[in-house]
Amino acid sequence: MREKIEIIGERLNGSLPSLGRAIAERDGNYIRQTALRQAEKGADYLDVCVSAGEGEAEILRWMIGEVQSVTDLPLCLDSPDGKVLLQAVAFCKRPGIFNSVSLGREEELEEIFFFLKKHPGWKAIAMLGGQGGIPKTAGERLEILEEIRKRRERLDLEEERIYVDPLVEAAAFANPGEVLETMAEIRRRYPETPVVAAVSNISHGLPMRSYVNQSFVPLALAAGAGCLILDPTDSGVRGVLSASESLLFPDGKPSCMSYVKDYRRNFF
Amino acid sequence: MREKIEIIGERLNGSLPSLGRAIAERDGNYIRQTALRQAEKGADYLDVCVSAGEGEAEILRWMIGEVQSVTDLPLCLDSPDGKVLLQAVAFCKRPGIFNSVSLGREEELEEIFFFLKKHPGWKAIAMLGGQGGIPKTAGERLEILEEIRKRRERLDLEEERIYVDPLVEAAAFANPGEVLETMAEIRRRYPETPVVAAVSNISHGLPMRSYVNQSFVPLALAAGAGCLILDPTDSGVRGVLSASESLLFPDGKPSCMSYVKDYRRNFF
Repeated sequence: MREKIEIIGERLNGSLPSLGRAIAERDGNYIRQTALRQAEKGADYLDVCVSAGEGEAEILRWMIGEVQSVTDLPLCLDSPDGKVLLQAVAFCKRPGIFNSVSLGREEELEEIFFFLKKHPGWKAIAMLGGQGGIPKTAGERLEILEEIRKRRERLDLEEERIYVDPLVEAAAFANPGEVLETMAEIRRRYPETPVVAAVSNISHGLPMRSYVNQSFVPLALAAGAGCLILDPTDSGVRGVLSASESLLFPDGKPSCMSYVKDYRRNFF
Repeated sequence: MREKIEIIGERLNGSLPSLGRAIAERDGNYIRQTALRQAEKGADYLDVCVSAGEGEAEILRWMIGEVQSVTDLPLCLDSPDGKVLLQAVAFCKRPGIFNSVSLGREEELEEIFFFLKKHPGWKAIAMLGGQGGIPKTAGERLEILEEIRKRRERLDLEEERIYVDPLVEAAAFANPGEVLETMAEIRRRYPETPVVAAVSNISHGLPMRSYVNQSFVPLALAAGAGCLILDPTDSGVRGVLSASESLLFPDGKPSCMSYVKDYRRNFF
């Protein structure tokens, strides 16, 4: 049986204008409300990202505190700096996900994998990119996957603890066929590897972004993504996610009960 | 290069409560407004369906007149009765589509195929069902397709004039995997056969139907549907259709210009 699709809520991100303002003004109430709204819409994890600027570690600590004061959801610690991620662990009440590691920052990847070895509850997202930015083709991304798998296997880390991020790019600039093909090929080669897709990346630079995100959700699920980073407070995206899950994975019960249940929980 | 996805607007259907009332009251203004609203959202054809009741042929004639008084779009004549369809041709200003023929009404199928032979502009939708209702599996539907192809080839009718309807069923009662698999297999076997999907059927009996329809649109397009019967005045469905088209068929221009163009035309 297929597991439920996991949702990582993306709204606690300093690169979003309203959240950036809340950080600048240390508006704890806004942080808490943003956490709660995502929790109410069925998020399984909350991404917490300061996004650039001075004092990242300190701000992250403050955000984590605010979020944990209102919800028990595990966090997805989000920073390009592995040191910041490892420091933040001390403030987390429960194990979460490191977002992210990559071959472009090999030493930090090793450090985080070692950390995972010692702390069984934690997971990490590994990006299929490297020093050279985002690989153009599915083939190049899959080569990176093989390298990451080697490092995981060397430490005998469980497959399901390293989520793989195939790197969703803006459709306005790159053909979405490559990332969809990457996901489908991961699914074929390694059915147990969790694939995580950052949905909103697909719509950068386009008008009415929600429609583009909504279109991408069923395609990503059909291609094999089992975890989506998205805005669960966007009713269109949330509704389409619940519906797609029922259409694609009826689990022998073609009555769409999971969709109806999500509807009754006011998820959309 | 992939052709643009065709849209058949579904709103002129007597089984919809508001349209049924408009028919009962012979409210020509409502018929005309419904035609215009769909035309404004980029419909390529307008389905015209009386749906049951006495005097179907006469009402259909009246509806066709009202619709053609405000738009030049070709019509999709929709009736289970082949005789009604063939009678209605006389009232159409330009060639359209017969919706539909099936092996369950073999004599009418032959008559309509003969008509197509003599009238090059017309097309027909052939349902992949028969006397026994909707076949459960993709395999059974494909057997029916082979039978329909034989009858088409016997008359030497062009492949692109017989649209194939794989029969979308309500996801609440039947696994959508069968119809998606049917479409994908038709695409594999016969790349030139036009596949038409009646999108809204997928959501019968479910709450917030638009989200279910929106989820199905990208899946149907990815599976190979080239023509969709849907409500183009539903902004969510219309936006997702335009976005899905740009995501799936970038045509060497990953700038999503067709999506942006549809946005500028106020399609969603």
